[in-house]
Amino acid sequence: MSGPEMDLGTRSDTSRAVAFSDAIFAIIITLLVLDLRVPDVPPGRLLSGLLHQWPSYVAYLASYSYVAVVWLNHKAAFNRIQQADRGLHWRNLFVLFTTALLPFPTIVVSHALQEHDNADQRVAIAFYALIGALLCATWLAFYHYLARHPDLLKEQVKDAFFRVERLRALAGVVLYVLAGVVGYLVAPLVGLAIFLLLPVFYAVTSAGLYQFPMTRRITHRPPPPSG
Amino acid sequence: MSGPEMDLGTRSDTSRAVAFSDAIFAIIITLLVLDLRVPDVPPGRLLSGLLHQWPSYVAYLASYSYVAVVWLNHKAAFNRIQQADRGLHWRNLFVLFTTALLPFPTIVVSHALQEHDNADQRVAIAFYALIGALLCATWLAFYHYLARHPDLLKEQVKDAFFRVERLRALAGVVLYVLAGVVGYLVAPLVGLAIFLLLPVFYAVTSAGLYQFPMTRRITHRPPPPSG
Amino acid sequence: MSGPEMDLGTRSDTSRAVAFSDAIFAIIITLLVLDLRVPDVPPGRLLSGLLHQWPSYVAYLASYSYVAVVWLNHKAAFNRIQQADRGLHWRNLFVLFTTALLPFPTIVVSHALQEHDNADQRVAIAFYALIGALLCATWLAFYHYLARHPDLLKEQVKDAFFRVERLRALAGVVLYVLAGVVGYLVAPLVGLAIFLLLPVFYAVTSAGLYQFPMTRRITHRPPPPSG
Amino acid sequence: MSGPEMDLGTRSDTSRAVAFSDAIFAIIITLLVLDLRVPDVPPGRLLSGLLHQWPSYVAYLASYSYVAVVWLNHKAAFNRIQQADRGLHWRNLFVLFTTALLPFPTIVVSHALQEHDNADQRVAIAFYALIGALLCATWLAFYHYLARHPDLLKEQVKDAFFRVERLRALAGVVLYVLAGVVGYLVAPLVGLAIFLLLPVFYAVTSAGLYQFPMTRRITHRPPPPSG
Repeated sequence: MSGPEMDLGTRSDTSRAVAFSDAIFAIIITLLVLDLRVPDVPPGRLLSGLLHQWPSYVAYLASYSYVAVVWLNHKAAFNRIQQADRGLHWRNLFVLFTTALLPFPTIVVSHALQEHDNADQRVAIAFYALIGALLCATWLAFYHYLARHPDLLKEQVKDAFFRVERLRALAGVVLYVLAGVVGYLVAPLVGLAIFLLLPVFYAVTSAGLYQFPMTRRITHRPPPPSG
Repeated sequence: MSGPEMDLGTRSDTSRAVAFSDAIFAIIITLLVLDLRVPDVPPGRLLSGLLHQWPSYVAYLASYSYVAVVWLNHKAAFNRIQQADRGLHWRNLFVLFTTALLPFPTIVVSHALQEHDNADQRVAIAFYALIGALLCATWLAFYHYLARHPDLLKEQVKDAFFRVERLRALAGVVLYVLAGVVGYLVAPLVGLAIFLLLPVFYAVTSAGLYQFPMTRRITHRPPPPSG
Repeated sequence: MSGPEMDLGTRSDTSRAVAFSDAIFAIIITLLVLDLRVPDVPPGRLLSGLLHQWPSYVAYLASYSYVAVVWLNHKAAFNRIQQADRGLHWRNLFVLFTTALLPFPTIVVSHALQEHDNADQRVAIAFYALIGALLCATWLAFYHYLARHPDLLKEQVKDAFFRVERLRALAGVVLYVLAGVVGYLVAPLVGLAIFLLLPVFYAVTSAGLYQFPMTRRITHRPPPPSG
Repeated sequence: MSGPEMDLGTRSDTSRAVAFSDAIFAIIITLLVLDLRVPDVPPGRLLSGLLHQWPSYVAYLASYSYVAVVWLNHKAAFNRIQQADRGLHWRNLFVLFTTALLPFPTIVVSHALQEHDNADQRVAIAFYALIGALLCATWLAFYHYLARHPDLLKEQVKDAFFRVERLRALAGVVLYVLAGVVGYLVAPLVGLAIFLLLPVFYAVTSAGLYQFPMTRRITHRPPPPSG
């Protein structure tokens, strides 16, 4: 009876990984609100205190959108996965690890924009970009693993799907690094604006770049003529 | 095999969206308790310190009830949804976004009522009303989408259902704005009282306004006579 | 088609209520650890600082056990429930509400035992007892509702089950009130010790008092002789 | 009909225990990030402040890996469990209890390494080791229970499986105690390094030591020759 026992140990359906990941994404996305605090102002100044905190709101919005897009990506990926092995579980845990880090650079950016000088703001933006790029890099590893292990996928999934997803993740690494460089060298607020735009880019393309004819041409080899 | 692959990418069953939303509601509703703190009082004054914190308790109760009602609404809506597409997922994420914000105005109100002057209290109440109205507005968008996409619904769901739900959400926007105006212009505590009453209104009507003959008359066109 | 539509609105299976409740219990039980903080001591005094915090550990243990027992009760109850209606959902939300409050009196007790004088400690213990009794009271309402609505239960559930559970919940209200009175009038630490013992009592009896012959005699009427 | 009713009370399928545990692991793993704070530095010193916090990052990494490994173990165990009884639920709750404690020694270690003197750092490392060993001890009790109750397991699970898992848990107790002793007597940073390595050891062996011929020889008695 070593067959089924092996299966128990090495491969398993993805339901628990999905439930665990969903819970983590849900917690991260709601933990972000803990960074929004009552402004510490003298009586009568609550309104200006709330308005003065605008960088917190922008940083919150950027990170909320980022996690929302990560969740949509995660859902799109696991919709196509039949079973998970140990290697995939660890890559998933790396994705969760970098996503779970996100509240930290978020709070660093929002504090720096409110209370620190320009040099600190550049550092904070570069730090956010670093974690953002790292998060895309863990997705790259995740998609790469799936592109190399088509046996983990559902039957009807096109071979090219995760090869194209890799491109999207790679683009993310590059774009977050660019945002960090621009934010550090040019102006922190420009970097922050790019952080807001990037999830929009991913939301628009999250149905898969595959739907665009160009990427289809690049990555898809036509099936051999039958007959 | 492009049919099933398309399905994987664009439409999916709602189980993960429901689990993700449930986790977020659960977290928001329990995060609220973090605002309840040990009063910072000299020795021997704990009791009066605890009593003095009553605005925290009222604000906690108002927000807990609000999230509970949001969860009941969410359950009632997804009970009627067969499958979700990208547009619905994003509207759901907007609902979760505004709900996740709720702990922030809650803590602002409870602090203002304890430590700030009357002008600040008016600002805090208006701020809570703003987020409360925003939350109803995201529900309005959510219901509107469903009213326009009956193909996403289960077969036995009446066409009128989400058209009536839209009315309830619209009423919520109006009532939170009114509570904000009254709280700002008249008295903050009156606004707070309305915040406590609004979830009760929604709890009572959450089986759907549809059950009331009047709204049924407004929104339901009789089926064409058969035969 | 009003039959199924009615069903969608008024009664539903319990899976979402269970998942939502599980998430809330999980969050409450882990939020408790946030009260355990690095002691604020001068260099070289970490060990004594950690030891000095023992009331935090005892309060943490009491509340963790309480929530664990609440979860086991909740599981035992919903194992017997076939479907939930609006009334049951609201009673469940009341149970979740009082459980979610538990971290607050926990932190009040642990702070009072460390930093306040004896009068404050009596207040803190009485406050914990109040919330503990309130939690049992919401269970009482929950069980009472089920005892009155046998149509919500699974077929094989014995009629007497929730009538006996009511007794356990009532005992809990009385015992927490007693612990509060003893803690307030006699000594706070005695009250704390009772808080530690109460979950043990519930753990031992959580398979249902019904298993004990005496309670069976009280609550169970013999079936009418057939034939 | 006492048979099924008995079943409802004493044994049940594991789905709710799994969902509850997953939620707790997810919360613990994300709560850890709350310990990462904006450094409290004068303007212009954000970068050095962030770098100065490296012990927080190392402690975060050690604890994240530990919880990730605990989750993988938990998944591997429950994959083999058919049904749970009260005894198993309580042992599971003990595992969750010690895992939920982990953020506390994590923050103690990271603070001690940043702000306290060497004596405090030794205490902090020993404290972390204590909780780490305690967590392994609860696993030991959990596995021991399963090794003694093969009737709770799925049919195809090899008898030896949980006997070997016990060895792994016992090794964990010993190794965490050793790390604590080394960290206390020799150097705190050496202890911290062992904390980082231990989850790697568990990750490598988490498919079960059973796969290694040596442990197989120790624990597995050959089946009696048939015929």
